[in-house]
Amino acid sequence: MTIPKISPLAPDTFPKIPSIAGVWMATSATGMKYKDRDDLLLMVFNPDTNFAGLFTKSATAAVSVHLTKKVIENNHGRCLLVNAGNANAFTGAKGESSARSVLSMLSEISGLPLNSMMMASTGVIGEYLNANLICAHLETLWNSKGTANWYQAASAIKTTDTFAKASMQTIEYGKKKVQIGAIAKGSGMIAPDMATMLSFIVTDAKIEKSLLQEMLFETNKKSFNAITVDSDTSTSDMVILAATGSSNITIQSRSANANKFQAALQKVMMDLAHQIVKDGEGASKFITVNVLGAVSDESAHKIAKSIANSPLVKTAIGGEDANWGRIVMAVGKAEEPVLRDKLTIWIGGVLVAENGQKSENYRESKVDIHMKSKNILIDVDLKIQDGSATVWTCDLTHEYITINADYRS
Amino acid sequence: MTIPKISPLAPDTFPKIPSIAGVWMATSATGMKYKDRDDLLLMVFNPDTNFAGLFTKSATAAVSVHLTKKVIENNHGRCLLVNAGNANAFTGAKGESSARSVLSMLSEISGLPLNSMMMASTGVIGEYLNANLICAHLETLWNSKGTANWYQAASAIKTTDTFAKASMQTIEYGKKKVQIGAIAKGSGMIAPDMATMLSFIVTDAKIEKSLLQEMLFETNKKSFNAITVDSDTSTSDMVILAATGSSNITIQSRSANANKFQAALQKVMMDLAHQIVKDGEGASKFITVNVLGAVSDESAHKIAKSIANSPLVKTAIGGEDANWGRIVMAVGKAEEPVLRDKLTIWIGGVLVAENGQKSENYRESKVDIHMKSKNILIDVDLKIQDGSATVWTCDLTHEYITINADYRS
Repeated sequence: MTIPKISPLAPDTFPKIPSIAGVWMATSATGMKYKDRDDLLLMVFNPDTNFAGLFTKSATAAVSVHLTKKVIENNHGRCLLVNAGNANAFTGAKGESSARSVLSMLSEISGLPLNSMMMASTGVIGEYLNANLICAHLETLWNSKGTANWYQAASAIKTTDTFAKASMQTIEYGKKKVQIGAIAKGSGMIAPDMATMLSFIVTDAKIEKSLLQEMLFETNKKSFNAITVDSDTSTSDMVILAATGSSNITIQSRSANANKFQAALQKVMMDLAHQIVKDGEGASKFITVNVLGAVSDESAHKIAKSIANSPLVKTAIGGEDANWGRIVMAVGKAEEPVLRDKLTIWIGGVLVAENGQKSENYRESKVDIHMKSKNILIDVDLKIQDGSATVWTCDLTHEYITINADYRS
Repeated sequence: MTIPKISPLAPDTFPKIPSIAGVWMATSATGMKYKDRDDLLLMVFNPDTNFAGLFTKSATAAVSVHLTKKVIENNHGRCLLVNAGNANAFTGAKGESSARSVLSMLSEISGLPLNSMMMASTGVIGEYLNANLICAHLETLWNSKGTANWYQAASAIKTTDTFAKASMQTIEYGKKKVQIGAIAKGSGMIAPDMATMLSFIVTDAKIEKSLLQEMLFETNKKSFNAITVDSDTSTSDMVILAATGSSNITIQSRSANANKFQAALQKVMMDLAHQIVKDGEGASKFITVNVLGAVSDESAHKIAKSIANSPLVKTAIGGEDANWGRIVMAVGKAEEPVLRDKLTIWIGGVLVAENGQKSENYRESKVDIHMKSKNILIDVDLKIQDGSATVWTCDLTHEYITINADYRS
């Protein structure tokens, strides 16, 4: 079984992201797990930066999640250090002391307070973090920080990711403009809830903390929280949105400017969410599941997730088999209000099932070409009320098994 | 990818099951989907038989589920017809009329009332059932019915099953005895809830209907409802327990006899539940997940299911990799009360993690031999209160993908 070096669903090019004032970055290679590549990223923010964050709901969240959450809540953040290859999760007092010693040293080198230091760790769970390996690089990192090289930053935080993920938007306000630049990592253990994988988003807009948090929460619902690769939720998930304010454009709550900003933020987060699905372990198809006509948006979301997480639906799509009966099964098992005889299903826009049975004019040959394409579209209308949701996922293939049967070696 | 003809976890022999008075059986081959094998089973019960049943909670349950549920509720059952290869699910009015025409004809041939006719269908969802193919065999089936041949019966209801599943218990009451004989089918789309796959259990004890239903419900909780192959729930699940009363031994509620009977029933249903997991699509390991110390049994069950359904835990076990960090992840994502630093995990009886980290004396070499064995044991103690549960599952392998990427062809 050979694993493709780059996902067949990867975008053709890495986006061109401008420098964003108020943030500096640097990367380095510790050799901790990965050889011949950077695995450490430092982001430094100007003192006026406001922060919003969303974190994994996992009851076994990693130490970095707890530490960073506190800094974000207090809105004190100045430095964010990200290491790839070791999640420092379920490493107890020893893991906590490793994280603290790294952040203490960074605080000393930077001359910035300890309670402004944030950390994110991603990789294997349960292995001790070698703090010395990281500490040895902190001074060089601090001294070499400069205008963001987004490709280097996105590459340094990868684990099983086959490509670096980033996105940007420019928003024009009259003659002035605001930038959003963002990176993410994620490929397996992806079923975010509340927050998700790792993503760091920076804008030079000036946005007050509570509005920033509100915008992140709303936008997250229809982006990172609407994707799933394998129904497994990471212990290290976090999304951080930092507004440096360096553009001197202030976004006020409930203003037209705020709407414009939120729309752009949605584009960035959706783009990154889709890239994560497209880099789903073993993915060969990008699947969009739309559910309409549910009793509520929440109910629609639960049904869409039930379809998107069904191993039988996902393997059928991987096999290019339009086995729509499995979609019926996945709708049925969601434990949500469904009227069997109203349930209507389309694959690739072709009406497949209605009135509690296969549609009269449906022939499997009608969806053959669609099933062979890289983008699979499933539409489900429950025809009860008007709750709706969209969830994105990928297929389940032999490569997923190959990657995960022995990830650590 | 070659799929083994018989699961490596299959029992060595088919159990020796005595004839049970009050039930007659016959099998036949319609050629509907499978060639050169029986795919139709008729069970006929004496008029005194009491019935209990549990049915899928799926909102898109098959027509046979609805029809049979009603007969069981009214306790009128006389004939049960089972066909394999076509689930007659999501086939609308046409599917309902097919089922009714089959049962009408069976009623006519048998001279028994239409409202005593039950049916179970298993196989592909959404394809129309060819009633004529079944009707053509009903007269022969009726005329050839006789003392149960359990092997033929268990074989006739298989779909992707690689072996026929049956179990028996004899319970001695002084010099008299009661028999329990049972068959089941199931291999994929196994995550029963309330009821499960197909299983038909017959005893010659005399047990009043409400007690029978209560016993089935209780026993089911710790057998069929405690297994999962792939987290997908079938549209056709049913378990039926028929007490023919032909032994003339009456089981009274809350008696010592009832306890004895229930213990034997538990053995039969547990045995069949384990056989289904051992025939899980692509299974190479049988996995037992015990969770202790939860705030309630329900909470323990939810956490055990979260571990047993995690694709990352299951692929790691398939790869014989003791990746216990994924067990931590699966506990964490269950959305149940968990104290990270109390969580304790054993694999194969070896203490792996405690106090929020890897156990001090744990070395991976200690579980090497266990990981290579066919039976994998995971114990989790949450150390909060005394809720406990056990769930059984199998690993997730390349063969699961191969089987399901194009099951219908």
